[in-house]
Amino acid sequence: MPDEKPLGEFELIERLTRGLPKGRGVILGPGDDAAVVRPSDGMDLVITTDSVVEGRHYRRDGCDTERGKRGLADAVGRRLAAANLSDVAAMAAVPRWAVLSIGATSGDLEWTSNIERGVAAGLGQDGAALVGGNLSRVEGPEWFSLTLVGEVERDRSWSRRGARAGDLIAVTGVPGFAGAIERHLNEYWAEVQGHGVLGLPGLEARDFSAWTAPPSRVAAARAMWRTGAVRAAIDLSDGFAGDLAHLCEASGVGAEIDAARPEGALAAIAEMEFGGDARRSGVATPETVFEALRFGPSDDYELLLAVDPAKREACAAAARASATPLAFVGRFTAEAGALMRIRADGSRSPLPGRGYDHFAAAE
Amino acid sequence: MPDEKPLGEFELIERLTRGLPKGRGVILGPGDDAAVVRPSDGMDLVITTDSVVEGRHYRRDGCDTERGKRGLADAVGRRLAAANLSDVAAMAAVPRWAVLSIGATSGDLEWTSNIERGVAAGLGQDGAALVGGNLSRVEGPEWFSLTLVGEVERDRSWSRRGARAGDLIAVTGVPGFAGAIERHLNEYWAEVQGHGVLGLPGLEARDFSAWTAPPSRVAAARAMWRTGAVRAAIDLSDGFAGDLAHLCEASGVGAEIDAARPEGALAAIAEMEFGGDARRSGVATPETVFEALRFGPSDDYELLLAVDPAKREACAAAARASATPLAFVGRFTAEAGALMRIRADGSRSPLPGRGYDHFAAAE
Repeated sequence: MPDEKPLGEFELIERLTRGLPKGRGVILGPGDDAAVVRPSDGMDLVITTDSVVEGRHYRRDGCDTERGKRGLADAVGRRLAAANLSDVAAMAAVPRWAVLSIGATSGDLEWTSNIERGVAAGLGQDGAALVGGNLSRVEGPEWFSLTLVGEVERDRSWSRRGARAGDLIAVTGVPGFAGAIERHLNEYWAEVQGHGVLGLPGLEARDFSAWTAPPSRVAAARAMWRTGAVRAAIDLSDGFAGDLAHLCEASGVGAEIDAARPEGALAAIAEMEFGGDARRSGVATPETVFEALRFGPSDDYELLLAVDPAKREACAAAARASATPLAFVGRFTAEAGALMRIRADGSRSPLPGRGYDHFAAAE
Repeated sequence: MPDEKPLGEFELIERLTRGLPKGRGVILGPGDDAAVVRPSDGMDLVITTDSVVEGRHYRRDGCDTERGKRGLADAVGRRLAAANLSDVAAMAAVPRWAVLSIGATSGDLEWTSNIERGVAAGLGQDGAALVGGNLSRVEGPEWFSLTLVGEVERDRSWSRRGARAGDLIAVTGVPGFAGAIERHLNEYWAEVQGHGVLGLPGLEARDFSAWTAPPSRVAAARAMWRTGAVRAAIDLSDGFAGDLAHLCEASGVGAEIDAARPEGALAAIAEMEFGGDARRSGVATPETVFEALRFGPSDDYELLLAVDPAKREACAAAARASATPLAFVGRFTAEAGALMRIRADGSRSPLPGRGYDHFAAAE
């Protein structure tokens, strides 16, 4: 007989945690007052936490089919895992154990557990495991807060400090792509739900995986870490220009970014948008739209690195071996705090774009 | 010049984390992609997470003076720390490093940072430190989610499993007191705010510290752990009967609780409440009201322990040496799942009370 009562907290937790894979080094998983895990000898721990909030990071009302809702829940979970994995990768650490704190609105167990499964799946791809959590009821937007613990060899973690003037600026993946895709997510979800309206020129459904299931850079980070080429690192979660500024501030340096020719799917989006309002505004060009997307607010969960120029090739080879695109896009300068873009003709101008700020962004 | 703009996320984080005490073993504190900490050799880690949600765990609108708001924010923070410290104590671990994830509604920096300071102060009393966090903006009830990592000697942590029939049931402090006090918090806050309406018979302002600043049981737990007397443990965060049931289920045992004579401040509250609706109902007695408070929903952050009868005195002495009240209130039985109360005349009846369930409790 199906139980007509709404699920209680303890049953909900039991169902949510049932069948979670037991991770490496997990002595005692969910269900006690705390999880017990065993760290490896000779390692430091890195600890990071990130959250997603309904209405700010995703909207539930955008999906009206079961397939769409499942896909969205999975993406929300995977992105939350990716946000934390990316922080751990930016420290050159190996992700291990996570706990998930949930503020849920009601007994929509399917939705909540699909998000949790997305989190667990995202973590699992890098060998990390959910070992515990907490469930509170909220009257209002639901939220999911994930804390991830990783391990890194003692005194060997990367940080935002350490970039020197002359170091190369390298980035993984396509910075700005997640933010650009976010502008067209409605069309994507319509397609997922079978309404068949995608077919954005130059954009394929698989491109959206940069948003729905961001690739992990943990393996690439560890491979590059082994080369000793990287002097500082930050993950791109606010946007290229914003996060570059954070790293420059922590390291006391400036940066100059080489002009890039618009290409690939990001260029396709820029061209598409140029064809709309931007063209009508009369001041934009495909290149300026491309740069606004590339350097502006975007949570890509990619890595931005300061690379010792003498070890550029070793670093590039490590990224290649991890099947991770790595581009050298500029260099750090002694001009502390100055973020410049250099065109092919040698002219310099301030780098466009700024990071996403939860509290500055007006509704 | 004061900045008229609302504080941005990064400035808010910077201000929130400024001046936090650097904890033991902290290699890199707030401000990077993740914190870096150094675990001690030969230790396991325990990881727990808990949250507080506006409107569910506290109400902001109850305070109309600056003094009242400051007191409430401090209490909210200290209780969140206590919830996590209590979980760590229940594993016999030493609390070390914590990260705080915040969903804040607006730029009321004073309120938010007072809560964070309450968290840091609560953690600091046990030698633990905030090493990082995350800030999201929410449109709706604000929330604070804390994750705490502790250390315990390998394979030596307590858990809910391990209680045997015949083991003594011991509890620290006064179970039920936090829940009972919660029923009279409005009067307390009125007093704090200078409206001078406290003077509840038998209840003093300092009694409310069980709610506003729950005492930590970490030191007592470690002292009792050293005696080897404790076979299983759980922290009281849902209520005596509910948490006892969790421990019994995990250990596959039952429990019988000796009838206790109502005494102390909890008895005073029971007597006061008996004088009201309970007396009018005609079925309650001061004793039944006392037991409903004692065994019912209450987040006391006290410890419930299964104690080896042969080591009762060593356990009691360890608690005394830690200035922690410890009462032996019954024993575990072989009757799995049965929670009974035994009266002085030897009669047995089911233990009243049940734990707090976020999702079963209707508004």
